[in-house]
Amino acid sequence: MRRSKGALLPPIQAARPRRGDIYHALRRGLLEGVFAAGARLPSTRQAAADYGVSRGLMEEVFCQLTDEGFFQRSVGRGTFVSPAVSRLTAPRRNGSENRPPLSLSARGRRLISAAACREPAVPVPFNAGIADTSEFPCHRWRQLEARAARELGREALSFADPRGLPQLRVAIARYLAQFRGIRCEPGQIVVFNSTQQALNALSVLLLGRGDAVLIEDPSYLGARAAFGLAGAELKPVRVDEHGLRIGPGLGRAPSARLAYVTPSHQYPAGAVLSLERRIALLEWAAQGRAWIIEDDYDVEFRYEGQLLTAIFALDAGERTIYLGTLNKSMFVSLRLAYAVVPERLVEPLADLRTQFDGFTPPVRQMAMSLFMEEGLFSAYLRRLRVLYGNKRGLLTEALAPLRPLGWYWDEEPAGMHLLLRHKNGSYVRKTAAASRLDLALLRSYRLRHHGHDDGIFLRFGALDKEQLLAGSRALVAAAQAVPEQAR
Amino acid sequence: MRRSKGALLPPIQAARPRRGDIYHALRRGLLEGVFAAGARLPSTRQAAADYGVSRGLMEEVFCQLTDEGFFQRSVGRGTFVSPAVSRLTAPRRNGSENRPPLSLSARGRRLISAAACREPAVPVPFNAGIADTSEFPCHRWRQLEARAARELGREALSFADPRGLPQLRVAIARYLAQFRGIRCEPGQIVVFNSTQQALNALSVLLLGRGDAVLIEDPSYLGARAAFGLAGAELKPVRVDEHGLRIGPGLGRAPSARLAYVTPSHQYPAGAVLSLERRIALLEWAAQGRAWIIEDDYDVEFRYEGQLLTAIFALDAGERTIYLGTLNKSMFVSLRLAYAVVPERLVEPLADLRTQFDGFTPPVRQMAMSLFMEEGLFSAYLRRLRVLYGNKRGLLTEALAPLRPLGWYWDEEPAGMHLLLRHKNGSYVRKTAAASRLDLALLRSYRLRHHGHDDGIFLRFGALDKEQLLAGSRALVAAAQAVPEQAR
Repeated sequence: MRRSKGALLPPIQAARPRRGDIYHALRRGLLEGVFAAGARLPSTRQAAADYGVSRGLMEEVFCQLTDEGFFQRSVGRGTFVSPAVSRLTAPRRNGSENRPPLSLSARGRRLISAAACREPAVPVPFNAGIADTSEFPCHRWRQLEARAARELGREALSFADPRGLPQLRVAIARYLAQFRGIRCEPGQIVVFNSTQQALNALSVLLLGRGDAVLIEDPSYLGARAAFGLAGAELKPVRVDEHGLRIGPGLGRAPSARLAYVTPSHQYPAGAVLSLERRIALLEWAAQGRAWIIEDDYDVEFRYEGQLLTAIFALDAGERTIYLGTLNKSMFVSLRLAYAVVPERLVEPLADLRTQFDGFTPPVRQMAMSLFMEEGLFSAYLRRLRVLYGNKRGLLTEALAPLRPLGWYWDEEPAGMHLLLRHKNGSYVRKTAAASRLDLALLRSYRLRHHGHDDGIFLRFGALDKEQLLAGSRALVAAAQAVPEQAR
Repeated sequence: MRRSKGALLPPIQAARPRRGDIYHALRRGLLEGVFAAGARLPSTRQAAADYGVSRGLMEEVFCQLTDEGFFQRSVGRGTFVSPAVSRLTAPRRNGSENRPPLSLSARGRRLISAAACREPAVPVPFNAGIADTSEFPCHRWRQLEARAARELGREALSFADPRGLPQLRVAIARYLAQFRGIRCEPGQIVVFNSTQQALNALSVLLLGRGDAVLIEDPSYLGARAAFGLAGAELKPVRVDEHGLRIGPGLGRAPSARLAYVTPSHQYPAGAVLSLERRIALLEWAAQGRAWIIEDDYDVEFRYEGQLLTAIFALDAGERTIYLGTLNKSMFVSLRLAYAVVPERLVEPLADLRTQFDGFTPPVRQMAMSLFMEEGLFSAYLRRLRVLYGNKRGLLTEALAPLRPLGWYWDEEPAGMHLLLRHKNGSYVRKTAAASRLDLALLRSYRLRHHGHDDGIFLRFGALDKEQLLAGSRALVAAAQAVPEQAR
């Protein structure tokens, strides 16, 4: 500490302090309560001498602190610490003991408790629901991105259409017609960063607080989070081997405003919704002027057989919204998904989307449309089907020793996850705990219809062959190690 | 139409139809009600002959339609159209006359009515609140993006930390320390796509439905949209030449959970919040355990003088959340912004963020951190300050003829917008209408405190010199053309 007439000035390490050093040292002193409020400061001449700097420099610092309101200067009397400074409390020491609890809202606590959409930092068996990118043509993709950036030029920096880049909307419409049998205009497509973002926007746009929503039980946690964000009331409807049991659901919530379904491959149970039920769902929606959200989240990964006609394609009444994502088929950091909606919904949805995060940057949209138009996407999808099909084969083969123990799974050859089930839920949970793997239980996807059974949801997308086999071995060993009387 | 035993099959244009052509033609017939429910179809032999294709191919199509539930086959009797098909209604013709109204929620209608965050497709005077990119080093940026993609390799495709890329968080913390006098740990920073996204996440996390929020009046429309999304109740607090009048606001909402302020450059009125009021705000927050959101949206564009110390830096009680954006200083499609929060808030905020749209792709985060670390960002900011300072000078010079007519504006040399005011609001509105420009009135930013005055909010960021001058001329001419008795 240097002594000078007036308050003590804080020391400065630098041998030749600069303006910023002195300003920050004085300000820190003010914030930390080093100066008493009302205390008189040394003259700028004195302070300059103490710090070994020019008086002009010191004058600048004093002026700034005066402009900011920290100092008050009185002609002929000198410079004083403002009384307001005494109301700045000293910074809390780093102890967390007597800090008040975090004031989050009850809704905030509820929404984060599920952490529904946070993926693990490292994919290990069996938490890897993201895409396998080992065969992704990275180099080709980077070339397309560079080409897109060149072609867009400075336009790439500007505000892009919040409905999506026109080229990408055209490419998606063509893809849907060719591979999914869905006919729609490019103008009916709204591009999002993710299905989750689309679900949030749709929930807020279509649902009022307290509105009832029919949801599959078990169901996708992200959808529940979206409807929770909108304050909607969930009406769980049981899922059986033909998907959502639309009959009982109707009885329980005749006035629901919306139904959320994953008809191609129910998440997480794997069932395919029958035509009969698709039609019943459409009839229900038409009657009650309700909306249907059809989430076709992994429709690209059906290894055999044909897909059923999408509800969107069956709908003549403009009640269905079709959701697709490119983040699962391409790579998770692409951040491109889309909603196909009745034309009248496009502008409201785009307006609302801008209130979520503006718009999707145009370069990756353009690169994606080039990837599709050049046939690279369909070629890559064919490779992925083989890749995931092989992984699924490997997995079910490795899990075969579980069959004699009463475990079973859906034979539907699709997707990048597998639901391993057993009628004895307590046995399932004992196995999961003993395996020491990062496992999600079927139970955590269920809302109301808890049976005695349970299951383990194996997300194998990004796992390689070794991880897959090691994980399976651990799981089989754990299941076999549970004492027989507990199975 | 071809005649065959059984129902009529729809015609196909293709001379040598493929499997997909026949499938889609039949399915379209089913969806459009061409087939009567229960009608008998021709045999596959007959149908194959009619279409001139092999019987095997026809068999495949029939099988698929049967699998889907459209057809029912009965051994020895033939193939029939499923009764369920009659419940598919024919597609609506394109007339919009007798379509029911769109069933949006009241909240949805309210949120989109402001279209608060949708930027115009083309920047014209004076709707151009986005960045000027004419001097942005595009080529250098693309190089950095390419380098970032190379360095990240396949990691670039994977799930990235929802709190933000570590390198970028470090670079932002350093930037804040050097240019804003804010000391924080990189671990206190959460990266978002936009301030708007951060505001949405914070609102939902911190506010319950019906919680009171102190908001500046006039205020940023995006913040209002975010608090509206959370169902909070807005408590408008008047703004004067020293910013938010914290006294009256306290009286009106002692139990408010949060205050939203733009202390460096009030949006849209331009005032700087005084130290006295900053301290009063902190005292209020500490007393009621409320949060303060400090939105420093355009702090980079102060052309002269010093910034006041941020509220965040004055706060020893962990009540302040600091928001900054790179979309205004770099370019609007960058989609990078950040929140600096008390450490305990980081994980909850990151969890919630994943429920909005997952995470921000890593490549552009890495490129941004390189841009900052190589000193390119601070160099570019210096150029921008000159650029916007010149634009602002040009604008105020061109608007000088308005002064004798009683118009006035904030002399604070900052930002990429200017609020042009007049005490006679009706004159302001007449001028705006007569100018035929795309103008936003101060009135539309106000919540409660409507005076007799009004203003025109000129957003000049992306306008070039010619647009700026043409717009100013049109405005001056319009103001002069209003009859004297109406001024």
